[in-house]
Amino acid sequence: MGASLKPVRVVLVSPLYGGNVGSVCRAMMNMGLSDLVIAAPRDDFNTFDAVKWAYAARSIWDAHREYPTLAEAIADCHHVTGTSARDGLYRQVRCTPREWAPDFLSHAAAGPVALVMGPENNGLSNEDLALCTSLIRIPSTEAYPSLNLSHALMVCAYELYVASGAGDVAREAVPAATSEMRERMFAQWRSALLEIGFMESDKADHMMMAMRRIFSRGTLSEVDVRILLGVARQARWCATHGATPPPTNGE
Amino acid sequence: MGASLKPVRVVLVSPLYGGNVGSVCRAMMNMGLSDLVIAAPRDDFNTFDAVKWAYAARSIWDAHREYPTLAEAIADCHHVTGTSARDGLYRQVRCTPREWAPDFLSHAAAGPVALVMGPENNGLSNEDLALCTSLIRIPSTEAYPSLNLSHALMVCAYELYVASGAGDVAREAVPAATSEMRERMFAQWRSALLEIGFMESDKADHMMMAMRRIFSRGTLSEVDVRILLGVARQARWCATHGATPPPTNGE
Repeated sequence: MGASLKPVRVVLVSPLYGGNVGSVCRAMMNMGLSDLVIAAPRDDFNTFDAVKWAYAARSIWDAHREYPTLAEAIADCHHVTGTSARDGLYRQVRCTPREWAPDFLSHAAAGPVALVMGPENNGLSNEDLALCTSLIRIPSTEAYPSLNLSHALMVCAYELYVASGAGDVAREAVPAATSEMRERMFAQWRSALLEIGFMESDKADHMMMAMRRIFSRGTLSEVDVRILLGVARQARWCATHGATPPPTNGE
Repeated sequence: MGASLKPVRVVLVSPLYGGNVGSVCRAMMNMGLSDLVIAAPRDDFNTFDAVKWAYAARSIWDAHREYPTLAEAIADCHHVTGTSARDGLYRQVRCTPREWAPDFLSHAAAGPVALVMGPENNGLSNEDLALCTSLIRIPSTEAYPSLNLSHALMVCAYELYVASGAGDVAREAVPAATSEMRERMFAQWRSALLEIGFMESDKADHMMMAMRRIFSRGTLSEVDVRILLGVARQARWCATHGATPPPTNGE
């Protein structure tokens, strides 16, 4: 049921702010990623902030590993994607996260792969970029192209989660009403609208076309149709018996 | 050149944390949105944090408007989308941000539309949801379905930005090398590999097929081919003249 996200490693190179790294943990857990590595950590990194902003994703922070260099952090990976917001030398050939995600996951099927993000102020250095086998750039406005670190990770992780197909299972199935159910409902409504005196019988066809249009703007679910059937039924009962308690069941 | 994002209003209902709202401002500006409204603001809202986290998107914070109720915040909108992470009554019929974005933008072409997000702790109330004409849910893991407010906004804003086509223009065109350029390069490489003694002439055809495979793993740009031409040229020069300064120009 879809590609596995387990071999996907998120590598943060020398992040500045604990809050951002904590937010990255949360976004990772939201999107089914779990393997966090920090390369070339700074001495003044605020661990307290990281824990605080990770909220319920504390487990990802607790399990994270650290390496002195990016090269060591990705030594066992056979595909490495860097992220870059800047134009310039070595940064020309890039794809969007949407183009990238399915391809990246097909590499992940063969072993560990890494998504690498640079420090908040400067992004990845040319030395870091040289270690990457592919490069992505998140689309953004010219007015403000620089995304927050955890926002950038969220976009990439979201694209991976969607591409993995994992999100599909989470969607509950609301069964759409069948044509037979819809027609039964429209028949009830026609009778009801006649019986409550809303329309004359010579206008009924015309008016029912309008009702069909209104109720066909979106897909009606089975529940919707059952509700609408109930409305018509009660209207008909009321037209014959006056406004008294509804019949308990049966059409 | 794509759908306009101008009529898109982001409405935050009673947000708790200034930092989140500031981050929302930044994500909005990253993704070309500008109209921020806060409905039913709290008395203890931390404006200082909002400004701090907005960074360069301060202009969006400064231009934001406030209304006592959600109903007033969206009074002039003819399409209103709510976001919900929870299952439950009134929350059954939802689409994903990807399904939603193009449809939402087509509504935006006719006037103001709103994307509504609830407070960080509880999300939108049933009363708020009743005011929405459509509902989206961001795919996420069962282990941790609750996204940070600014992360949720980022995913929706990113989908809108991509659907608007605005991101397409931002991608620089790296012209792929033409077949003629590639063939010129392979011819140079063939000569070079022979002249430096890398291969015998009876093995050249076979070896050049391997070289073609290697250089065709990805699309070669014009710049790539120019570099590879230069390598072959210099190798040939070296084979004849020894390792001395390269020729200044010309093939």
